[in-house]
Amino acid sequence: MSAIAVRTLAVIGTGLIGASAALGARRAGARQVVGWDPDPDHLAIAAERGAVEAVAGLAEAVAHAELVLVAAPVGDLPQTVREVLDRAPVGCTVTDVGSTKGPVCGAAGDDARFVGGHPICGAETRGPGRASADLFEGATWFVTPTATTAPERLRVVHGLVSALGARPVAIGPDAHDRLVAVTSHLPHVLANVMLNQAGSTRIDGHDPLQAAGGSLRDMTRIGGANPRIWVDIFLDNREALAGALAEQRRQLEQVERALAAGDAGFLARWIGEASGHRRRMLATAFTDPGELHRLRIHISDRPGVLAGIFQALGAERINVEDFELDHVSSERGGTLTVLVAGPGEAERARKLLEQQGYGVVTAPVIDE
Amino acid sequence: MSAIAVRTLAVIGTGLIGASAALGARRAGARQVVGWDPDPDHLAIAAERGAVEAVAGLAEAVAHAELVLVAAPVGDLPQTVREVLDRAPVGCTVTDVGSTKGPVCGAAGDDARFVGGHPICGAETRGPGRASADLFEGATWFVTPTATTAPERLRVVHGLVSALGARPVAIGPDAHDRLVAVTSHLPHVLANVMLNQAGSTRIDGHDPLQAAGGSLRDMTRIGGANPRIWVDIFLDNREALAGALAEQRRQLEQVERALAAGDAGFLARWIGEASGHRRRMLATAFTDPGELHRLRIHISDRPGVLAGIFQALGAERINVEDFELDHVSSERGGTLTVLVAGPGEAERARKLLEQQGYGVVTAPVIDE
Repeated sequence: MSAIAVRTLAVIGTGLIGASAALGARRAGARQVVGWDPDPDHLAIAAERGAVEAVAGLAEAVAHAELVLVAAPVGDLPQTVREVLDRAPVGCTVTDVGSTKGPVCGAAGDDARFVGGHPICGAETRGPGRASADLFEGATWFVTPTATTAPERLRVVHGLVSALGARPVAIGPDAHDRLVAVTSHLPHVLANVMLNQAGSTRIDGHDPLQAAGGSLRDMTRIGGANPRIWVDIFLDNREALAGALAEQRRQLEQVERALAAGDAGFLARWIGEASGHRRRMLATAFTDPGELHRLRIHISDRPGVLAGIFQALGAERINVEDFELDHVSSERGGTLTVLVAGPGEAERARKLLEQQGYGVVTAPVIDE
Repeated sequence: MSAIAVRTLAVIGTGLIGASAALGARRAGARQVVGWDPDPDHLAIAAERGAVEAVAGLAEAVAHAELVLVAAPVGDLPQTVREVLDRAPVGCTVTDVGSTKGPVCGAAGDDARFVGGHPICGAETRGPGRASADLFEGATWFVTPTATTAPERLRVVHGLVSALGARPVAIGPDAHDRLVAVTSHLPHVLANVMLNQAGSTRIDGHDPLQAAGGSLRDMTRIGGANPRIWVDIFLDNREALAGALAEQRRQLEQVERALAAGDAGFLARWIGEASGHRRRMLATAFTDPGELHRLRIHISDRPGVLAGIFQALGAERINVEDFELDHVSSERGGTLTVLVAGPGEAERARKLLEQQGYGVVTAPVIDE
């Protein structure tokens, strides 16, 4: 995280994202942060929390700003950005935080002051009540300059993003939309379809969702997300998303043909290909995914159990690379999955926890 | 967990599942557990680990058994179960652990001694080296009696499953295969397709997998799984899986049509439906999913951090309902997500952790 170079920031839209960016900019040293929101409650809460100085309208907010961050809902973005550009001073830089970039960049036209932006922070809730200066720490923040964006503007937005603790990644607006169609919007569609397919049927009286294991739960965690946000995102990015869906269907048809033909060779190559891609993806987070080992530990559902386990591992300097809890029920407890690096560490952790009376099952994460 | 009623158990196939069941049965009080495996290494390791007394062949193993557990790979199951039934005494009960039930139940025909079984324990690795008596604790274990299964046989298998700490769920073989097609095999196919779609393309030079957020990572955790196991499972259950894939494609086409028509009403209803299903699914694990709150905590990557956080929560008697770590990188640390029940607990946890210098963002899990 670096200090912010901009002295005067205006935030248009003081919901969770806008108010969090305002708090972060203040912490990074911005001298003045003014804010406006068409929803007076959002504006009042953001001001109460010390995120922004509230002003009476959009024009007033941007009149003396060096940098304007537009954090309006996706559906309102093009119009709001257009209005900001019409009112903002010549020397001002304007950026936004929308999940799609085509429509908003189109609305900015060839205005050299505009640079699109999109923080990947997994935040859904709209209100500023839970705003936090830490929201963007460690997150990827796409920055989408157009052909006419002035380099100086890009530098200013880059500086804001870094000051908020995020990692700026530059990409063209169209490429951004095709990228998030594959990495985010398609997964959201599939999570919804999986929930609706499994949830709307009964198989001999059994509800598939009651019988669902951890895999279906993991794969639908993002399903059923706030429709006020997601309908607009899906429609805004409908072209790129349709392309991703068509490609998905094409690949599903390939699998269906292989199943119908009993083509074991195709299926083995296809799984092997997926395994290679997964290994590459994990390599962005872990130094050596092939070394990762998984420990599955059955635990009871009461306070103190988790602390005890992590204390024991910490005391032995066993670094936990990743973990999650698959909560089964209050009566039956759940399964704690912990990843450690290397078979030696896995064995050390297993022995340690077994000494404390836990049942532990270990396995390599990548099992090819 | 209950004591086992069976005195003499034979395990055919002493890989991870077979050897773990043997260890569990011994712990539950089985007097004699004999084992055989066509792979002499697997048999030797299982015997060394004290899971089974090794015998020289299948016929010898089953000759005096009250109960035979067949834990062969899916592809070999029908033939092995047939052979066991041909050799086992009249009073013997025979069960298996295969992920598909159609072919193996077909091979058993109308033999009243056979009851199919399928533990959902998320275990992939084949070798007995990591076998554990705890592998099945808290797991669902499908039990698939046929029309000709004698009630007494079902009772014996039910008893074994309970003695191993699992929860027996009775279901017909065909219904089982359709159920796991939707809850397990289809998710595996989709995880592979997502990896292959995102992994085999570059968008303006960007690798989608490098840009992937937590959602894609969650949704592909089961992708690229051991092809030696999964090709057989897919092919064995190809009929039910093809049905699930066709239904998936049909639902994807609906979404594509809604996108093309800009049908916001359809999309909102469709997301709302998914949200309802997700709430119902979470209700199997949590008393009141609507009360769940998520805390996102940015943490550094070093031993002791996790212990500190869970200790602090434990000391305040704040019960952690679920959690996971989204590991970003060694340099930038990761995000710890913790679920607690109720807005009051969430606020208490947030304040506590902020006092310790952590940045915390809270939100309700179900945001409709």
